[in-house]
Amino acid sequence: MALKARVLYEFNSENPGEITVKENEVVVLHSEQDIEGWLEGTNARGERGLFPASYVEVLRGDAVTPSRHGGTASFKADAQVDSFAKAVAPSFPKAVAPSFAILPAPSQNQHKYQVSHHGSEEDWDDDWDDSSAAADEPAGAGGGDPDFQGNGPSTYRLSTSVARGGYPQQAKSSGTVGRNLNRFSTFVKSGGEAFVLGEASGFVKDGDKICVVMGQYGPEWQENPYPFTCTIDDPTKQTKFKGMKSYISYKLTPTHTQNPVNRRYKHFDWLYARLVEKFPVISIPHIPEKQATGRFEEDFIAKRRKGLIWWMNHMTSHPVLARCDVFQHFLTCSSTDEKAWKQGKRKAEKDEMVGASFFLTISTPAVPLDLQDVESKIDGFKAFTKKMDDSVLYVSATISEFARKQMLGFKKEYQKVGQSFKVLSQAFELDQQPFSVGLNEAIAFTGEVYDAIGEYFTEQPKQDLEPVMDLLTLYQGHLANYPDIIHVQKGALTKVKESQKHGEEGKVDHPHSEGIRERCNIISFATLAEINHFHQIRVRDFRAQMQHYLQEQIGFFRKITSKLEEALQKYDSP
Amino acid sequence: MALKARVLYEFNSENPGEITVKENEVVVLHSEQDIEGWLEGTNARGERGLFPASYVEVLRGDAVTPSRHGGTASFKADAQVDSFAKAVAPSFPKAVAPSFAILPAPSQNQHKYQVSHHGSEEDWDDDWDDSSAAADEPAGAGGGDPDFQGNGPSTYRLSTSVARGGYPQQAKSSGTVGRNLNRFSTFVKSGGEAFVLGEASGFVKDGDKICVVMGQYGPEWQENPYPFTCTIDDPTKQTKFKGMKSYISYKLTPTHTQNPVNRRYKHFDWLYARLVEKFPVISIPHIPEKQATGRFEEDFIAKRRKGLIWWMNHMTSHPVLARCDVFQHFLTCSSTDEKAWKQGKRKAEKDEMVGASFFLTISTPAVPLDLQDVESKIDGFKAFTKKMDDSVLYVSATISEFARKQMLGFKKEYQKVGQSFKVLSQAFELDQQPFSVGLNEAIAFTGEVYDAIGEYFTEQPKQDLEPVMDLLTLYQGHLANYPDIIHVQKGALTKVKESQKHGEEGKVDHPHSEGIRERCNIISFATLAEINHFHQIRVRDFRAQMQHYLQEQIGFFRKITSKLEEALQKYDSP
Repeated sequence: MALKARVLYEFNSENPGEITVKENEVVVLHSEQDIEGWLEGTNARGERGLFPASYVEVLRGDAVTPSRHGGTASFKADAQVDSFAKAVAPSFPKAVAPSFAILPAPSQNQHKYQVSHHGSEEDWDDDWDDSSAAADEPAGAGGGDPDFQGNGPSTYRLSTSVARGGYPQQAKSSGTVGRNLNRFSTFVKSGGEAFVLGEASGFVKDGDKICVVMGQYGPEWQENPYPFTCTIDDPTKQTKFKGMKSYISYKLTPTHTQNPVNRRYKHFDWLYARLVEKFPVISIPHIPEKQATGRFEEDFIAKRRKGLIWWMNHMTSHPVLARCDVFQHFLTCSSTDEKAWKQGKRKAEKDEMVGASFFLTISTPAVPLDLQDVESKIDGFKAFTKKMDDSVLYVSATISEFARKQMLGFKKEYQKVGQSFKVLSQAFELDQQPFSVGLNEAIAFTGEVYDAIGEYFTEQPKQDLEPVMDLLTLYQGHLANYPDIIHVQKGALTKVKESQKHGEEGKVDHPHSEGIRERCNIISFATLAEINHFHQIRVRDFRAQMQHYLQEQIGFFRKITSKLEEALQKYDSP
Repeated sequence: MALKARVLYEFNSENPGEITVKENEVVVLHSEQDIEGWLEGTNARGERGLFPASYVEVLRGDAVTPSRHGGTASFKADAQVDSFAKAVAPSFPKAVAPSFAILPAPSQNQHKYQVSHHGSEEDWDDDWDDSSAAADEPAGAGGGDPDFQGNGPSTYRLSTSVARGGYPQQAKSSGTVGRNLNRFSTFVKSGGEAFVLGEASGFVKDGDKICVVMGQYGPEWQENPYPFTCTIDDPTKQTKFKGMKSYISYKLTPTHTQNPVNRRYKHFDWLYARLVEKFPVISIPHIPEKQATGRFEEDFIAKRRKGLIWWMNHMTSHPVLARCDVFQHFLTCSSTDEKAWKQGKRKAEKDEMVGASFFLTISTPAVPLDLQDVESKIDGFKAFTKKMDDSVLYVSATISEFARKQMLGFKKEYQKVGQSFKVLSQAFELDQQPFSVGLNEAIAFTGEVYDAIGEYFTEQPKQDLEPVMDLLTLYQGHLANYPDIIHVQKGALTKVKESQKHGEEGKVDHPHSEGIRERCNIISFATLAEINHFHQIRVRDFRAQMQHYLQEQIGFFRKITSKLEEALQKYDSP
C-alpha cells in the first residue's frame, strides 16, 4: 500500500519542482523521508513534486504521525516577515506550521534552531534526522516579558519557541526560592534555573573545565592556547543509493591538524543543534539558511559555502566553542572512519554537561563580582544590542537597496549615456570628412567606456556590499541570540534578590542563599565573558569588513577613472 | 486717459510677477513699452503684473495697434514644443500668437529671429526696439517642401516664418526662367532667387569682398588674416531714468583692440537681427534665450553670460562674420561715444549689401564647380544634419536626465548609505568599550564621506554635463539654420536646371542661362564653404568639449577616490 499523507495547510507551488496541495487533500508519498524539510509526492491532480513536510500529516491506517517540523521554529532574517511573525505569535501554541503558509516561499531563509536533535545512527544517512525532541518543547505561550516584546519595531527577531516565554513570575512558595511556574521561560529551559537553585549535578572532568579570567576589560573567556582556523573548500556534488540521493560535500581543513575532512550541510546542522543545547550563555553563530529548491545550483552553493566560512570563522575565534569536544570531533574525525564518527556522535548526543550542568564546568576568578555592577553592565549591553540590532537592520536595508540601485538604475543611466554617445558618433560618421575620423572613433569609444562603467556598477556590489551584508546577517543572528543569554543571567539575578528578600524575612537559611549567590556569580562571569568576546569580534569583524569595503570602493572608482583616461587619450589623435 | 489693451488670448500666470488675463478682458497698461516681450498692467481683477505683449492689442480710441510680436516667429529649443508647433503650423497665417498660448511659459526659450529690425534712434533706449518690419513678413502658409516637413519627428525645428514656405513651384512663364510664385519661400525671401535671376545689383567696395578659396577639403571661406577672440565679463546691473529701468551690462574685450566696451543683451539681439538679414547662406549662431522674469537673478545672469560667450566664440571663429562691419562696430565702438554708436547703427541698418546683394560680394575661385557633385554633397550634408539633429536631441535628453539622476537619485543613494553608517556608529558608541573608539569614529567618518560623495554627485553635472548641454544647444541652433541655407542653394540649382531645360527647348538665350549658372556657382561656393566651416568648428568644439567632459569626470572620480582613501586611513588607528 502506498504511503499517504493528508494536507493540513494549503501550499501553493512557487518554484519549479514544487506542487500545489490543498487543505484536506490526500497525497501519495514517494518516500516518508523528506529532503531538507520537503516531501516528494503526487497530489490529487496527478502532479508529482515537492511540498513542505510540515504541511501534511502522514496517514498510517488510523494512526496519524504529526509532521515533525510542526514543533520547530523558523527564523527569518527578513524583518517584515519577522514583525509579522511577532504579530501572530500569540496564536502559535497549537502549531507553528500555519506561519509557513504565509511566508513568501518555504524554500527561503528557513532556519531551524534551538531544537534538541537526538538523532540515532540508523537514520543518520537520511538527509535529515527524523527523530526530534521538538514535540517535547511546546512553542512559547505568548505574553510575557515586556522588555523583549512590543518594544518598538524589529528589536529582536526571535523564534517563537524561545524568549516568547514570560519573564520569571516567581512562585512565592513559602520557605524556599521557588521554581518558575512558567515552564516555557528561557531561564528554565536553558537549565539556568535548575543550576541556580542547586539542582544541577555531575562529574566535571578536568578537560571539560571552562575558565573565565579577569582581563583588561573585565571577565573574559580564557584564550584558546592552541588557536586555529579552518578553511572550507571544494563543494562537490556526491550521490548515494545508486544516484537516488544527491548532496553537496565540503572539504574542511583545520590548520591545527591539516587533515581535510568532508562534511555536509546536515553535519553542520547537527553540530549547531548540539552547541545550542550545550551552551546556554554562549551565542552560537547561525548556520546559513536551508533551501529546498536550487540546492545544486552554483550560485546557491557558492553562497552557502561563504556562509559556512563566516560561521566557521566565528566558531574558531571563540575560545570555548573552538575547543569543545563536539566541534573538535566534527573537525577532526576522518570522513572515511564511519565507526569513529558514530562513536563521537553518540558521545556528543549523550553529553551530560549540557544546559544546567554546563554551568558546573565553569571556573571563575576567586573574587566575586559586584552584582549591582553586573546588572548595570547587562542592562547597558541590552540597550546596546537593541540599538545595534536596529541599526544593523537599517544599514542592511539601505545597502541592499543601494546594491540594487547600482545594479539596475546606475547601470542603466551610464549605459544610456554610453548609447547616446554611440548614436552621436554614428551620426558624425555620416559627415564624410576625413579630418573627423579620429573624433568619431573617440566618441564611439567613449560610448563603449560608459557602457563598461555601467557593467562595473552591476558587478561591484558583489565585491563590496555583499560581504558587508553577509557580516550584518551573521550579526543579526548573534543579536537574536542575546535576549536568551540576558534572560538567563537576569533570571539568576532575580533568584538572588528573591533569596535575599526571603533571607531577610527568615524564610530561607543563609547557606542556601549563599549558594544561589555563588551560582549566580558563575552565570554572571560567563555572561560578561561572552559579552566581552562579542565586542572583541564585533570590533575585529566590522573593522576588517569596512576596510575591505572601502578598499573595494577605491578600486572600483580607480577602475572607472582609468577607463575614462583611456577614453580621454583617444581624443589626442586627430 | 490710461492706456488700455484688449486681451486676445488667455494667458495663465505661471511665475511670480505674472498675472492671468482672460480673452476679451481689458487691461490697463502702465506703459506701452514692453520689457523683453512683456507688458506690465492691471487686469480686471485689480492684479498688477506682467503678461506677454503679444497676447493683447493696444486700444487707442477706435484704432487698434496689433501687438508687434504678432508677426514674429518664435524658436523653441525644446523639441516637444517644436513638434507641436509643427503640427499646428498650417493654421498660422492669421497670426503666430496663438502658438504662444500653448507654450508652457512665454518666459522660457523664446527666441525671435529672422525679423527685420530697423529701429530708429529715438527708441533705442527702450528695452526693445519698438518698430518692427515683422508685419511685412507674413508667416509661412504651410504645405510645401516635403523634404523639410513631416519627415519623421524632430528633424528640424524651424520658425514658422522660415522654411515653412513651399519649395519653389516654378512659374512656367514662356521665354524666361520664372519667378517663384510662392512668395514665402526661403529662396525668395533670402534674396537667393533675385540674385540668381540677375536682379540684384549694387556697388561692391573692395573691403566688402568675401572670398571663397579652394582648400584641402573643398571650397572654404578665406581665413581671417587677423584672428581675434573676445571675452565677456563683469555682468553689472545698471539703471537709468532715475532707477526706473534696470538692465545688465557686459564688458566685452576683443583681443585685437584690447579696449573693453559695454554691451547689453538688446545690443546682441539687434546685432543678431542684422546678421541674419545680411547673410543668407551663413549660419548665425543663436543668442541665448530671452526671459522676462528673474532677469536679475545671479543664476540667470551667469547662464546668459555663458551663452553669450559660446555665441561670441562662434562669431569670432567665423572668417566672414568675424570681419563684417556691423560686428566690428559692435565690438569696437566706444560705449561712451553715443554719436559714433548711432552712426554705425544707422549705417548697418542701411547696409544695402544684404540678402540678394550679399551674393554680389562673394568672389570665388575661377574654376566653376561641378553642379552634380555639389548637389550630391549638399544632399549628403542634408542627410548628415538630419541625423546629427536627431542624435543631438537624443544625447541632450539623455544627459540632461543623467544630470538630474545624479543630482537627485545618485546623491540620495550615497547619502542614505552615509546616513546608515552614521547610525551604525551611533549604535556602536553605546558599547562603552574603550577599544572600539577608533572604529566608531572611522565608521562615523565613513558616513560623512558618503554624505560628501552625495554632494559631489549633485555638484558635478554643472561642471561636466552642463557645458556639453550648452554645446548641444548651440548646435541645435546651427542645425535649425541649415534647412534655410540648403533651401537657397537648392533653389538656385533648380533655377539652373530649369534654364537648361528651357535653353534646350530654345526658350531662353544662352547668355541668360549662362548667367544663372554662374550665379548658382557663386551660391554653391558660398554654401560649401559654410558647410566646410561648420564641420571644422563642429569637430573642434566636440573634441574640446568631450575632452573637457572626460577630464572633469576623471577629476570627479579621483575626488571620490581620495575621499574614500581618507576614510580608509581612519581604520588604521585602533
